[in-house]
Amino acid sequence: MAGYTKSMQALIEHFHKMPGVGHKSAERMAFHVLKLSISDAEAFASSIIKMKETTGFCKICNNLSEGLQCEICQDLTRDKSIVCVVEGPNDIIAIERSGGYRGVYHVLMGALSPLEGIGPRDIRVKELLDRIKAGGIKEIIIATDCDMDGEATALYLMKLLKEFNLKVTQIAHGVPVGSNVEYADQATLARAMEGRRVI
Amino acid sequence: MAGYTKSMQALIEHFHKMPGVGHKSAERMAFHVLKLSISDAEAFASSIIKMKETTGFCKICNNLSEGLQCEICQDLTRDKSIVCVVEGPNDIIAIERSGGYRGVYHVLMGALSPLEGIGPRDIRVKELLDRIKAGGIKEIIIATDCDMDGEATALYLMKLLKEFNLKVTQIAHGVPVGSNVEYADQATLARAMEGRRVI
Repeated sequence: MAGYTKSMQALIEHFHKMPGVGHKSAERMAFHVLKLSISDAEAFASSIIKMKETTGFCKICNNLSEGLQCEICQDLTRDKSIVCVVEGPNDIIAIERSGGYRGVYHVLMGALSPLEGIGPRDIRVKELLDRIKAGGIKEIIIATDCDMDGEATALYLMKLLKEFNLKVTQIAHGVPVGSNVEYADQATLARAMEGRRVI
Repeated sequence: MAGYTKSMQALIEHFHKMPGVGHKSAERMAFHVLKLSISDAEAFASSIIKMKETTGFCKICNNLSEGLQCEICQDLTRDKSIVCVVEGPNDIIAIERSGGYRGVYHVLMGALSPLEGIGPRDIRVKELLDRIKAGGIKEIIIATDCDMDGEATALYLMKLLKEFNLKVTQIAHGVPVGSNVEYADQATLARAMEGRRVI
């Protein structure tokens, strides 16, 4: 078919492989690149390579890292006795944005999902247990997603962590700040009632 | 802020600059690149550079082209006496997909838009007139978009082309194939009635 040049078609296919990018969006992105100056396009291309070459995972917590240890694990002011367990590096970014947390993290790199065949060996549970066995940890905060897989993972971890002499907590689930009680769904309201606190 | 590595942040910013890509989507795309193999990431990066280096515009019709002339202008089986005027190279791809057209094209690279300050000198009108003056063209088909700017451009071209001894036509506007009359909007139905034909 006459239309895009071969090199343009190849670029469209690369964009199309990305999550949430349909064919039309991929075409728009390729046209955006076509309109870039050659130096901007080079900067774009080299940033892909540079990211792949420099970004790896922290040996301690599996967070994104350019060195062996991530910035958080290297930070001496962080409280290493509190470990917040999350599903992915994105979750760390969200919690860091919230600003209040001064402990460290453990990234599971996924959640248990029987439907997708993801079991405890496919996520970094063993590494978490190894960290706990190495000593120095007083509290584990479970901050997996509040969906089927995340909740299943939280339950699994809670059972597993009972044998250790640890404080195990889970982040609160309830009505989000800024939203109305009347618009909250049933499950959220039920959890909010269940998790009510004396004030 | 602790979180993404510097190289990842840089890549997110590149993705974020693309049309229709919000911050969250840009983050997802960067994570997609993180999961690619190094060879796939290199292929992606080099496809950006290759596209920028090889894709330019056809000297005759302004269509995308890897050489001086695009595939369509080079094609000897195409009827060079019929020129379809479109706003952008995307439009050519859409019309080519429809399969029936065997003439050639002229890409205006935009449409007249008084609101955005785009006048006749900012789009390739002069080049179209030069092609007509060079001779050999019998029919001009106007296929600009059916929105405010596209219609204004069509009207402008129709007036301008009156002085030439040419057949000037415009593609039909009406109820799209596969859709119901009852759901067609007022403006579309009015155009469909206006453009009715004896069968």
